[in-house]
Amino acid sequence: MSYSTEMLKEEKVFKDPVHRYIHVRDRVIWDLIGTKEFQRLRRIKQLGTTYLTFHGAEHSRFNHSLGVYEIVRRIIDDVFNGRKEWNSDQRLLSLCAALLHDLGHGPFSHSFEKVFDLDHEQFTQDIILGDTEVNQILTKVSKDFPKKVAEIIGKTSNEKLVVSLISSQIDADRMDYLLRDAYFTGVSYGNFDMERILRVMRPREDQAVIKKSGMHAVEDYIMSRYQMYWQVYFHPVTRSAEVILTKILHRAKHLHEQFYSFKHHPAHFYSLFKDEMTLEDYLKLDEAIILYYFQMWQEEDDEILKDLCRRFMNRNLFKYVEFDPAKEYKKLAELSILFQKAGIDPDYYLVVDSSSDLPYDFYRPGEEEERLPIHLLMKNNEIRELSRESEIVDSISGKRRTDHKLYFPKDILKNDQTKSKIKKQIRQLLDIN
Amino acid sequence: MSYSTEMLKEEKVFKDPVHRYIHVRDRVIWDLIGTKEFQRLRRIKQLGTTYLTFHGAEHSRFNHSLGVYEIVRRIIDDVFNGRKEWNSDQRLLSLCAALLHDLGHGPFSHSFEKVFDLDHEQFTQDIILGDTEVNQILTKVSKDFPKKVAEIIGKTSNEKLVVSLISSQIDADRMDYLLRDAYFTGVSYGNFDMERILRVMRPREDQAVIKKSGMHAVEDYIMSRYQMYWQVYFHPVTRSAEVILTKILHRAKHLHEQFYSFKHHPAHFYSLFKDEMTLEDYLKLDEAIILYYFQMWQEEDDEILKDLCRRFMNRNLFKYVEFDPAKEYKKLAELSILFQKAGIDPDYYLVVDSSSDLPYDFYRPGEEEERLPIHLLMKNNEIRELSRESEIVDSISGKRRTDHKLYFPKDILKNDQTKSKIKKQIRQLLDIN
Amino acid sequence: MSYSTEMLKEEKVFKDPVHRYIHVRDRVIWDLIGTKEFQRLRRIKQLGTTYLTFHGAEHSRFNHSLGVYEIVRRIIDDVFNGRKEWNSDQRLLSLCAALLHDLGHGPFSHSFEKVFDLDHEQFTQDIILGDTEVNQILTKVSKDFPKKVAEIIGKTSNEKLVVSLISSQIDADRMDYLLRDAYFTGVSYGNFDMERILRVMRPREDQAVIKKSGMHAVEDYIMSRYQMYWQVYFHPVTRSAEVILTKILHRAKHLHEQFYSFKHHPAHFYSLFKDEMTLEDYLKLDEAIILYYFQMWQEEDDEILKDLCRRFMNRNLFKYVEFDPAKEYKKLAELSILFQKAGIDPDYYLVVDSSSDLPYDFYRPGEEEERLPIHLLMKNNEIRELSRESEIVDSISGKRRTDHKLYFPKDILKNDQTKSKIKKQIRQLLDIN
Amino acid sequence: MSYSTEMLKEEKVFKDPVHRYIHVRDRVIWDLIGTKEFQRLRRIKQLGTTYLTFHGAEHSRFNHSLGVYEIVRRIIDDVFNGRKEWNSDQRLLSLCAALLHDLGHGPFSHSFEKVFDLDHEQFTQDIILGDTEVNQILTKVSKDFPKKVAEIIGKTSNEKLVVSLISSQIDADRMDYLLRDAYFTGVSYGNFDMERILRVMRPREDQAVIKKSGMHAVEDYIMSRYQMYWQVYFHPVTRSAEVILTKILHRAKHLHEQFYSFKHHPAHFYSLFKDEMTLEDYLKLDEAIILYYFQMWQEEDDEILKDLCRRFMNRNLFKYVEFDPAKEYKKLAELSILFQKAGIDPDYYLVVDSSSDLPYDFYRPGEEEERLPIHLLMKNNEIRELSRESEIVDSISGKRRTDHKLYFPKDILKNDQTKSKIKKQIRQLLDIN
Repeated sequence: MSYSTEMLKEEKVFKDPVHRYIHVRDRVIWDLIGTKEFQRLRRIKQLGTTYLTFHGAEHSRFNHSLGVYEIVRRIIDDVFNGRKEWNSDQRLLSLCAALLHDLGHGPFSHSFEKVFDLDHEQFTQDIILGDTEVNQILTKVSKDFPKKVAEIIGKTSNEKLVVSLISSQIDADRMDYLLRDAYFTGVSYGNFDMERILRVMRPREDQAVIKKSGMHAVEDYIMSRYQMYWQVYFHPVTRSAEVILTKILHRAKHLHEQFYSFKHHPAHFYSLFKDEMTLEDYLKLDEAIILYYFQMWQEEDDEILKDLCRRFMNRNLFKYVEFDPAKEYKKLAELSILFQKAGIDPDYYLVVDSSSDLPYDFYRPGEEEERLPIHLLMKNNEIRELSRESEIVDSISGKRRTDHKLYFPKDILKNDQTKSKIKKQIRQLLDIN
Repeated sequence: MSYSTEMLKEEKVFKDPVHRYIHVRDRVIWDLIGTKEFQRLRRIKQLGTTYLTFHGAEHSRFNHSLGVYEIVRRIIDDVFNGRKEWNSDQRLLSLCAALLHDLGHGPFSHSFEKVFDLDHEQFTQDIILGDTEVNQILTKVSKDFPKKVAEIIGKTSNEKLVVSLISSQIDADRMDYLLRDAYFTGVSYGNFDMERILRVMRPREDQAVIKKSGMHAVEDYIMSRYQMYWQVYFHPVTRSAEVILTKILHRAKHLHEQFYSFKHHPAHFYSLFKDEMTLEDYLKLDEAIILYYFQMWQEEDDEILKDLCRRFMNRNLFKYVEFDPAKEYKKLAELSILFQKAGIDPDYYLVVDSSSDLPYDFYRPGEEEERLPIHLLMKNNEIRELSRESEIVDSISGKRRTDHKLYFPKDILKNDQTKSKIKKQIRQLLDIN
Repeated sequence: MSYSTEMLKEEKVFKDPVHRYIHVRDRVIWDLIGTKEFQRLRRIKQLGTTYLTFHGAEHSRFNHSLGVYEIVRRIIDDVFNGRKEWNSDQRLLSLCAALLHDLGHGPFSHSFEKVFDLDHEQFTQDIILGDTEVNQILTKVSKDFPKKVAEIIGKTSNEKLVVSLISSQIDADRMDYLLRDAYFTGVSYGNFDMERILRVMRPREDQAVIKKSGMHAVEDYIMSRYQMYWQVYFHPVTRSAEVILTKILHRAKHLHEQFYSFKHHPAHFYSLFKDEMTLEDYLKLDEAIILYYFQMWQEEDDEILKDLCRRFMNRNLFKYVEFDPAKEYKKLAELSILFQKAGIDPDYYLVVDSSSDLPYDFYRPGEEEERLPIHLLMKNNEIRELSRESEIVDSISGKRRTDHKLYFPKDILKNDQTKSKIKKQIRQLLDIN
Repeated sequence: MSYSTEMLKEEKVFKDPVHRYIHVRDRVIWDLIGTKEFQRLRRIKQLGTTYLTFHGAEHSRFNHSLGVYEIVRRIIDDVFNGRKEWNSDQRLLSLCAALLHDLGHGPFSHSFEKVFDLDHEQFTQDIILGDTEVNQILTKVSKDFPKKVAEIIGKTSNEKLVVSLISSQIDADRMDYLLRDAYFTGVSYGNFDMERILRVMRPREDQAVIKKSGMHAVEDYIMSRYQMYWQVYFHPVTRSAEVILTKILHRAKHLHEQFYSFKHHPAHFYSLFKDEMTLEDYLKLDEAIILYYFQMWQEEDDEILKDLCRRFMNRNLFKYVEFDPAKEYKKLAELSILFQKAGIDPDYYLVVDSSSDLPYDFYRPGEEEERLPIHLLMKNNEIRELSRESEIVDSISGKRRTDHKLYFPKDILKNDQTKSKIKKQIRQLLDIN
């Protein structure tokens, strides 16, 4: 028996609150879960700063990764298995890609990627292809297996059907995170009938399609996705925490570049600051380490770094007002000047943050962010793009919604002895009392 | 309007997956939640190392504390309010005690308390009475209010009814943690009909009692508790992680005492090692910091510290066999000698761990761990202890169940070149292959 | 203490799987539930023939009526109570109207109303105002109370706020039936966050409005409604059963008019056939009686009546194909002739059935079926119609969706000795094999 | 392809609120579901009169039968399949027996069986072996197949493993009804982790056993069962309805024997009254028919029949007091005399009803009601009876709990002009006010 087909003597199960159980029979999968690179995902929260808004959202990417694996396993074992359009040789490849698709995520990825120009997808590739425990295991399957897995995750593989299971507008990744994030936040909007969707999925040459009879379940899924984006993922309080987190990273980098003498040196950040991050350094980063620094930096001499870290650790976040960049850019400039006059550095304390989402889109080749549309399998075996069949989806298809907010520390804008006149002006401009 | 009765202009709600919403109208409660001491609970997991067994169990004590508050709030506002036996002056006291009851918990409390002889209940008292943001807010209510709250939590208060809401065999604390831990682990055993229990709770002079008509719901609750203890809280894999954690702390202390030169100095542990922990030091401890050290110590020169930290971080835990101390003490001694011969320090790598639980107990005055029994309110207004009415409860009442296991690192007991003969003897004694 | 304010000594509760508990403290409500007219609703299924498609949908209108009552009770007691825009004198009126709003429903209302030109809303009025136990109880409140209740249900009352609680595009009736029908069918689409919607409802002079912050919950509710209509209420198999039911009633009436000699006389139907239904007769009708007759009529001599009853009782339903009346009317005519040639009466065995729904509509005064739109309460206290704020709702607003199907008994169109050529032509026209 | 192995072209699914979906691929199963004998189960409520206490409990035996089938299907296809101890030839036999195990249930079985000395198990046998659609289908599998199925259900088969799936102390029947009845009543006590139990079931020669690691799930199941019996199945209000139902049947029989001239003749009851019930007659009985008669008999001249029918239809039930037959038999005699004096026939209006349950029992060969105990599969492959391993189960094992209540119509015992003195005596004896 080769390693790639080796089964565990007895199936292992993980109790999972979303899928009830995660089932593992393949030796390869079991070994991958045991690697230190995969275990590291336990120390990366799935939803970054969201736990400061929805206190239940403390779940990790480890959880989610197991969930995506389980969904793909069920699609393959329970639905695709035995159908002529499905090549069972792709089973292990699909499972590995599902399990490992988020492997490169770092702590608070969203903010870190923005500030330090990182790319978690590149790190996922690097971990799979680099000198890691994960790579050793994949290589035992076959010499080119790591590359194959990386190509699925990187969407450059020719195995388009497998790619579509993990990266499309209705993939295992999205299905798991919507259900999981809904479960842990307690927000009911994310629920949809995944069982139904799985049952009506069918393999086709270059993608998984959905039988027409399951269209309503797909509509419901798209609405769930839309709701979760605006209710949870873009929640302004979460974004406020992210704004502060981003500003802490900016400040630390700035201080480092200015040869500021840290009481607690940002040793783990050096390579980030210098844009020389190695894979080894990256794998050491997790949210425990970041929180450790923020904890320490509450005692720094630099007022801004200290203040921002205290705000983050003790959840004393920025407030916000709606902001329309097209109309209010002048007001923003005015505010910026007033902040400076009041001795509040607007680079750190006056921040515009934008959220934007496209609930569903049909295929627009050549556009920046190509998104694989959802295809329905009609009774006559024809394949049709979803928005041509569903009025509901058609009515929201391609409509991007964008939202801008202006963040600031309301607490230090209150009336007190110093600068009370300027602060009053600021409050009036922001229309806050 | 005094601070103690000040209500928020608009009720605040926290979305909670267990209770749907946590409702806050009292200014005092809102302010307490905003303190840094309370926010720190976000960085302490409710179930310590359990997430290594049940991956969903990543929820924090912050979550649980809000939950206990909400249950007490509902008991008071929805059930007790307006009944003559209930003194509405105790409302705020009850809510504050509920919210703050776990405030003194540190990281991985169970292990830390054992190794360093700490007492989280004492720290809760210290935080409430010491120089903290929490103390400032409570003092604003009235000068002696912090003391009153501390006495409720410490069970030394004369307000026995209030004490019973938070510390009895059917209190808000237990009800929240059973439901919450069941929710996050995904284990269904912890479910019981809390709504029903709340509805039939009645205030009496020195305790909350349960109307007889709700007895079956209480039986179900006791069974849930029993199941959660054996299925989740005492799960041998969780205990294995705890064994390792404990041994890491022991080793670090030992090395420190031996003037071992740490690559990464255990600065946050100094006062622990010297038994001179101050409140200020204690409040800085959280699980991020502990994990930070464990991460760092994976690179220490000391083989034992390094190995144990790697095991903990990468979930490479000890295995176990059943162990009966009364019958097998000789075998243990033998094993200990063999471990030494094999070059595996038995102080760190051969560990007996015991779990013990009493599912329910009637009142046994004078015994070490006095437990307030559950009382039923009969139709004729008489009060009777639960086990006298419930056959099911009677049949398990007072029956302690204890379980011992012997933990060891199976992976390094495998056959290899070195010491293969001794290792074989060990495997035979442990009856593992 | 007057009857209208009399409270039960101890609150009564009904265990309800949807709302957990239904709470009753008002004597009037308790007494109304005990009337024989209200108990009769136990023998009328909430979803008519739907149980033949979704086997769980066996729940009665009794269930639903309690649920609507409970929702209105919670809106009033937990949300409106104490707000200046709410007149607490309308509490009992609201509760009674909620409880009794469906009182006039008969067995399989949809079909009966169509065939016999009945109107369940008129019967609701008649029961409330006629010589019934319900009327006696309401009259005990005050002489004009029955009329007031009837006017709320009939939407002719000036108490527009109360009317809106029971009859609007987001009323207690719809909220209960969506949740309840989703629960009993097991279809997850009907779920939405009712708790959230209740919390953000506010009383205004002529309607209940929804705070802007709850808009997303309302969007989700509208999507749920849309999905339930197409997934459950208009399910073609359910419609097939309804088609047969309707045809049984037509046939029985026809036979009666033709002086057919029934083995089992349709005594309970006489007044229906003659269009002389009295309230007393109507109240005797329930689904047990209808099923009794259908059971009996399986042994009649008339082939059509016998066959249709057997089909209904044993769930041997008609099959269907999509049908476009605009384009396919000629085909229908052709089929009709072929059916006649084949000896299958097309009046009973070839039926076009149409479903049509408008997921949401803004206000269109003067149109046939005026629907009260949903209004949002903005932060500045302004009131705005939902579709002006919600892009999702705007995109589906006012868009009616209609669906036509052609039903026929596929089993007797199979190839057999007789008329095999004609049947083949029919099968070809219908495009079935 | 033979009929016994014929699979449907496309799997059929039933949406089920308890198991999510019921999956059918076998042609035989699909055909059995379509028979009129099986469809008849839609008109028999699973829990008889329980809907008068728990209004959600309106679900039918049709529901439950599909559920038992689905559980057995999952045990076989997901757990037993491929294990050497499982003979896959028994698959269809097991599925058919599961589906049909309750086929012989009549309307309100409990009461009917008691009054008319019927046996639903015998009718199940008769339907399977008699001249029915079910028999035709089973015979198509093989000539002796109906007999085999009947023997499984009748527990006389040598296929003990198959028998144990459907009739043991932890069979598919009990698992489905506990979960289903909990779901529809809304009572949470009936929940247990069936998924877990299925996963740890193993086939052995003469029974299905449970791996030791699943013992706690089994303990929880036994507690659920215990709770459901006392909370739901033996609920005194349900029993009150049953008492009345029983008395209606007694009265009707009595009147018939006394040549009472019914306005509405009990045609469907004749063979019951004469103890000459044929299978054909029996299959016509359903709850619609019974309710039809009760409806009609509300207008009979006989005061007792009329009154009892009105009570049942309008849920005007008897009240009850606790009753201890051993101590209070004299009081019962006294009451009987007083009832007669008051002109209230004690045969119909003063009824002792007893409930009794044994939550679990080990094997007691030779005892009247032999119950197959639950066996655990230990790690060493030994098999041990559950109560020897589980302290909780041991503590309740073999302990029968019995409960007696005395039912009477409280409403007509109130003080009024007639017989006021006697009624007062009755009220005093009953200790009611």
